[in-house]
Amino acid sequence: MAPGKKGILERLDAGEVVIGDGGFVFALEKRGYVKAGPWTPEAAVTHPEAVRQLHREFLRAGSNVMQTFTFYASDDKLENRGQNLKISGAKINEAACDLAREVADEGDAMVAGGVCQTPSYLSCKSETDVKAIFKKQLDVFTKKNVDFLIAEYFEHVEEAVWAVEVMKTSGKPVAASMCIGPEGDMHGVSPGDCAVRLVKAGAAIVGVNCHFDPMTCVKAVKMMKEGVEKAGLKAHYMVQPLAYHTPDCSCQGFIDLPEFPFALEPRIMTRWDMHDYAREAYNVGIRFIGGCCGYEAYHIRAIAEELAPERGVVAPGSEKHGMWGAGLEMHTKPWVRARARRDYWENLAPASGRPKCPSMSTPEGWGVTKGHDALLQHKEATSSQEMKHVLEMQKKSKSSA
Amino acid sequence: MAPGKKGILERLDAGEVVIGDGGFVFALEKRGYVKAGPWTPEAAVTHPEAVRQLHREFLRAGSNVMQTFTFYASDDKLENRGQNLKISGAKINEAACDLAREVADEGDAMVAGGVCQTPSYLSCKSETDVKAIFKKQLDVFTKKNVDFLIAEYFEHVEEAVWAVEVMKTSGKPVAASMCIGPEGDMHGVSPGDCAVRLVKAGAAIVGVNCHFDPMTCVKAVKMMKEGVEKAGLKAHYMVQPLAYHTPDCSCQGFIDLPEFPFALEPRIMTRWDMHDYAREAYNVGIRFIGGCCGYEAYHIRAIAEELAPERGVVAPGSEKHGMWGAGLEMHTKPWVRARARRDYWENLAPASGRPKCPSMSTPEGWGVTKGHDALLQHKEATSSQEMKHVLEMQKKSKSSA
Amino acid sequence: MAPGKKGILERLDAGEVVIGDGGFVFALEKRGYVKAGPWTPEAAVTHPEAVRQLHREFLRAGSNVMQTFTFYASDDKLENRGQNLKISGAKINEAACDLAREVADEGDAMVAGGVCQTPSYLSCKSETDVKAIFKKQLDVFTKKNVDFLIAEYFEHVEEAVWAVEVMKTSGKPVAASMCIGPEGDMHGVSPGDCAVRLVKAGAAIVGVNCHFDPMTCVKAVKMMKEGVEKAGLKAHYMVQPLAYHTPDCSCQGFIDLPEFPFALEPRIMTRWDMHDYAREAYNVGIRFIGGCCGYEAYHIRAIAEELAPERGVVAPGSEKHGMWGAGLEMHTKPWVRARARRDYWENLAPASGRPKCPSMSTPEGWGVTKGHDALLQHKEATSSQEMKHVLEMQKKSKSSA
Amino acid sequence: MAPGKKGILERLDAGEVVIGDGGFVFALEKRGYVKAGPWTPEAAVTHPEAVRQLHREFLRAGSNVMQTFTFYASDDKLENRGQNLKISGAKINEAACDLAREVADEGDAMVAGGVCQTPSYLSCKSETDVKAIFKKQLDVFTKKNVDFLIAEYFEHVEEAVWAVEVMKTSGKPVAASMCIGPEGDMHGVSPGDCAVRLVKAGAAIVGVNCHFDPMTCVKAVKMMKEGVEKAGLKAHYMVQPLAYHTPDCSCQGFIDLPEFPFALEPRIMTRWDMHDYAREAYNVGIRFIGGCCGYEAYHIRAIAEELAPERGVVAPGSEKHGMWGAGLEMHTKPWVRARARRDYWENLAPASGRPKCPSMSTPEGWGVTKGHDALLQHKEATSSQEMKHVLEMQKKSKSSA
Repeated sequence: MAPGKKGILERLDAGEVVIGDGGFVFALEKRGYVKAGPWTPEAAVTHPEAVRQLHREFLRAGSNVMQTFTFYASDDKLENRGQNLKISGAKINEAACDLAREVADEGDAMVAGGVCQTPSYLSCKSETDVKAIFKKQLDVFTKKNVDFLIAEYFEHVEEAVWAVEVMKTSGKPVAASMCIGPEGDMHGVSPGDCAVRLVKAGAAIVGVNCHFDPMTCVKAVKMMKEGVEKAGLKAHYMVQPLAYHTPDCSCQGFIDLPEFPFALEPRIMTRWDMHDYAREAYNVGIRFIGGCCGYEAYHIRAIAEELAPERGVVAPGSEKHGMWGAGLEMHTKPWVRARARRDYWENLAPASGRPKCPSMSTPEGWGVTKGHDALLQHKEATSSQEMKHVLEMQKKSKSSA
Repeated sequence: MAPGKKGILERLDAGEVVIGDGGFVFALEKRGYVKAGPWTPEAAVTHPEAVRQLHREFLRAGSNVMQTFTFYASDDKLENRGQNLKISGAKINEAACDLAREVADEGDAMVAGGVCQTPSYLSCKSETDVKAIFKKQLDVFTKKNVDFLIAEYFEHVEEAVWAVEVMKTSGKPVAASMCIGPEGDMHGVSPGDCAVRLVKAGAAIVGVNCHFDPMTCVKAVKMMKEGVEKAGLKAHYMVQPLAYHTPDCSCQGFIDLPEFPFALEPRIMTRWDMHDYAREAYNVGIRFIGGCCGYEAYHIRAIAEELAPERGVVAPGSEKHGMWGAGLEMHTKPWVRARARRDYWENLAPASGRPKCPSMSTPEGWGVTKGHDALLQHKEATSSQEMKHVLEMQKKSKSSA
Repeated sequence: MAPGKKGILERLDAGEVVIGDGGFVFALEKRGYVKAGPWTPEAAVTHPEAVRQLHREFLRAGSNVMQTFTFYASDDKLENRGQNLKISGAKINEAACDLAREVADEGDAMVAGGVCQTPSYLSCKSETDVKAIFKKQLDVFTKKNVDFLIAEYFEHVEEAVWAVEVMKTSGKPVAASMCIGPEGDMHGVSPGDCAVRLVKAGAAIVGVNCHFDPMTCVKAVKMMKEGVEKAGLKAHYMVQPLAYHTPDCSCQGFIDLPEFPFALEPRIMTRWDMHDYAREAYNVGIRFIGGCCGYEAYHIRAIAEELAPERGVVAPGSEKHGMWGAGLEMHTKPWVRARARRDYWENLAPASGRPKCPSMSTPEGWGVTKGHDALLQHKEATSSQEMKHVLEMQKKSKSSA
Repeated sequence: MAPGKKGILERLDAGEVVIGDGGFVFALEKRGYVKAGPWTPEAAVTHPEAVRQLHREFLRAGSNVMQTFTFYASDDKLENRGQNLKISGAKINEAACDLAREVADEGDAMVAGGVCQTPSYLSCKSETDVKAIFKKQLDVFTKKNVDFLIAEYFEHVEEAVWAVEVMKTSGKPVAASMCIGPEGDMHGVSPGDCAVRLVKAGAAIVGVNCHFDPMTCVKAVKMMKEGVEKAGLKAHYMVQPLAYHTPDCSCQGFIDLPEFPFALEPRIMTRWDMHDYAREAYNVGIRFIGGCCGYEAYHIRAIAEELAPERGVVAPGSEKHGMWGAGLEMHTKPWVRARARRDYWENLAPASGRPKCPSMSTPEGWGVTKGHDALLQHKEATSSQEMKHVLEMQKKSKSSA
């Protein structure tokens, strides 16, 4: 970190609000640099200018955290999903660290090295094997001297705990974030219990990212906080939700929505939705507030604008906005100028322009209507590796109960 | 143009499909570089990396036209709306030309210098004054040797004709595009009549951009084509619509929708909507097919993918997509893999996730329910410069009829 | 008619507003006395109390016209669709006349004998045969001395003309109403041309009923009026539309909507929608204003309430309502009492309570997307009697053109 | 009861399904005989033919219970809300009993005398006073020898208990039904606790009616059943919900929806929705299944049709329907005939035809967002009698806790 810049815990311990960034794979998929399906981040090597530019947009929007673009960059995932890639995992992780550092140095931001769930875990590899996978990425993060670490996007608390345990060996602060909602992880472990296990494993910050809309994620983190406090433990809290309205999600989140991933447009949240989210997250006691899939810079900027009074700073990008869209005062048409006010946007229920489309969908996949029990019954999935793993896990967790 | 690269008319005369780019002001507003309200393009000077990156995304998506980021870059607009800017119009226009040329040279693209409607016209300046404004921008385009010119986003055919007349003096091919729908321009001049006047003024390509959704714009261009053919003239046709569903627009387009410009998200079109649009535009005989406000690279890529058989080329960006989302075949969950097929996405009616929001809005502003006649009656607007101008124009056009 | 009661033409010639009744088959289907599919009116004989009660409700709501419940009561229809009925057509038509007269005598109402389209016409029977069918019903109406006649629910103007010609022989006033929208009849004869032919055949009143929502029907009648006036003829005008919102109908109306006839509930219009309709119909110059399928007494009452100032009378049923729901002033809860005002209901956009349902459907059947031409191409229908007839008619009308 | 006809407990004890009727005040409001606001049933005297006909429709649809049309027919309510009525409460209650008996004798139905919540309770009258009010109605029911009694539409369990205690003195079977949802009564007493108190007071049947949609009501009755069973008690269960979709209700139910009572149309349930409801109610163990506001005969018939296999009888009205709309097989158009099948209607998501209307509303009134606590804080209501009462009750119940 640049001399004089404060670290993540220094900030959170001081009660500061830390603004996260938005998700890279969805934003870069739209820009043409990530392939939906494998979702791997080879663009860090092949198109560094595109990755750098996205970092810069988030920095300009007010983000204090540049997450390395290393989602699904574990060696097993890259082999599995990007098999014809000729680029090594180490090279991708290194390039991603360099890009994040380059942009972080341009403003008030830290670099966070990120790991996430692995195919090794889902195919029932041993703790040793799975941890070895995390360790490889961590070696790069250590070499590149990132400022802190985020273990994120875990559906199974056991794997998240393993990731935290590996990250913890670096001596750097560790944040742990699961892609779960209020119903808990894929075995029905509640958010509160997940959080307790993560804190005990060494996470200084716990929270939730992806899979659900902001209010649902805030609710899950609130449950984490209550669990941690009830256990007499201490932690900081983070939330990095979707920028999509997902009231109709089942326990596995937006993946199961029929619109995922290529027809989510009508669900994209407005900047004004972000104000509500930022305020609610703050009120609940969350201080690391960012975004995940669906976020663009203007969503992050809205978080920064909502919390400008608390933070005492305005994001650079707000020069091109003004609070509550004040820039509209310079619009040509008088009735558009009249929209340059808070209550107009706060009360607007935006139309979809799609008269043949409903408000809610029916999720697909397992676990939809019956919750976690359905995992045991879903016929179509029984032959898959994933399903076998789930069944074994369930057996284990029942016999240990 | 690079030696060996074909010009716009060479392509269109040969029956080729030319893919346009997407709109810059909306995309860069979301990224933090353009201010909604003034909508001026000073970022070409202040943040060239952001403008360059957006050009690159469209190029990668398959675009053959890099439009200079010179929307609202006329001197009168810059003074009027960006009065505290210290950057001269010439500097902005020059920087925009350089950026467009730099990226165009990286692929199969031409540079198009662009002018659009001016505040001078709306405040009743003389033909000489208005033409002088256009001439200033043209001087830069000539100096920078752009490949062709686009006079776009005109609500009044008279101003569009003036622009074409100025552009025509350069000897370069001129395209003229109005921001009108099937109801015609702000005086009720039909699309067919507008097109005839523009062709007579020297435009080799005529069409429509912005303000309405793709199918509405295609319909308006079809009316232009019918008008031109009926008049025994010849032209090529272009269309660059919104990427928003706007079935509820009045004659002035999406500006009058209550969601403009900060809550249009639920209206954003999916990539699959773009397939329909590209096919329809092609069927109607339009060969210059692109986008305007709301477009991101993946929308342009979808146009290129739909017309890949006709064009015989695939956009570079399609390596990260595959036709009809084939990349999903590599997704982890079997029910998501099952979405990697055309009929799934073609038939999906995506939910909004917004149960308290309707499908359609009621437009604001004048001309909403009663069409053009309302221009004469709208009370709140009568004091404005714009209104006075409209009244005068109306008088003129009536007395000349 | 009771001595002192005015006839239909006496009222209309004097410029009075005549309030029609609502449709019987839909209302009685919900109450359990009509079978959807055949839609025949045998309940006039089997359950007179139910038919009488429905007449009374419309009378109480303000209706001046008791239409005999003789829809689809022609002999050919009864044989065709209600083959296991043991009741003769004459008996049904007579019973229906008696019920209508009994209730008409209880208030300020006339009895109108009604005929409608026949299976004979659709199966290409001759003019003589079809007219004989109408004549049988007319004989009953004459015997029972109804006050006037309505030939309604015709999709083909030719058949409507034949019906008028038969009705005309009675010497009673004849009204002719087609179930068409602005696109005209099933051969594309425009509403204006249909009206002219009907007036020339002897109809004193022309208009439209069923198949479309109120505003669409009013628009079609307006086109009829323009046609009649342009032809230098004179007539009175009537409209009896659906009580369903049908913005998504194709040229054949609500029959083709996927919700027909058992899931139309979310489309049912409120009483407040009826105020708009009544006012618009009045403004257009229509003076015989009623309803068809979907109407209940409160819809008719709303028409009467909207036009109370013009009519100078209040419907008896309004004692249980009050203008704009004034009765709510006696509600227990203060926030419900606050709804007892016009602007509340006028501006409310009522929610559907159905988050998984869209606003519009895609119609089924022929003629949906391509209009009348599709009649010639629809594959699935080519073997049917109906289709053969349509093809022949089309040939005929083309050769005669 | 007619000799040989079985009583309510005889049926329920034998495991039979008893079909209830639908709500009278809403149905008769639409027909013009009840005034929204006061909602009093004087039509039993003034328009017996209308009340009788509605009874008959429900009987024909399959209902086994003719509830006397005595909703809000307590003397205090009649004085309070129908002050200009010249008809005594006794006369209304007697007429209602006679009408119910007359129609019950026409088929397999029992007569149930009904009482409901009183203004006396809400204005803090004593237990003695409130019970005296109920006793007056009971005296009529005893004199007219109804078959059993229903104390329904109570928001406060205390008042419901008082009603049961009074009814119980008659020696007739007593059913108790509250207008609450899963959140419980207006003091937050859970459905389970409410049920226990009612059973202990002497109710043989407990359940829920009005205020919420079918699935919500079934859920609340399920909670009642669990409470009763947990307490080691025994009871039968009843449910008579709204025929409106109300996913957006707050704890006070549909009264607080902005559409209440004059714009609920888009929420009206289809007959197919009733199949789901009837099946779910049956599966939960409820055996007295009927309806309340919004029900028409065809809704009740759908319940009877769904449970025809369990009941072994088909309702008379089904002769005009056929299971799953089989009558459509006789429709003229082939694509409508194709709709005569179960899976068509089961899977249809009916459109609203209202593109400017949302799916959900925001409830008004107290208790909306904050639940029962809000009762203590609602400013606008503090001056009202009702509010004072609530405050006192809350104090009492807290001090007694």
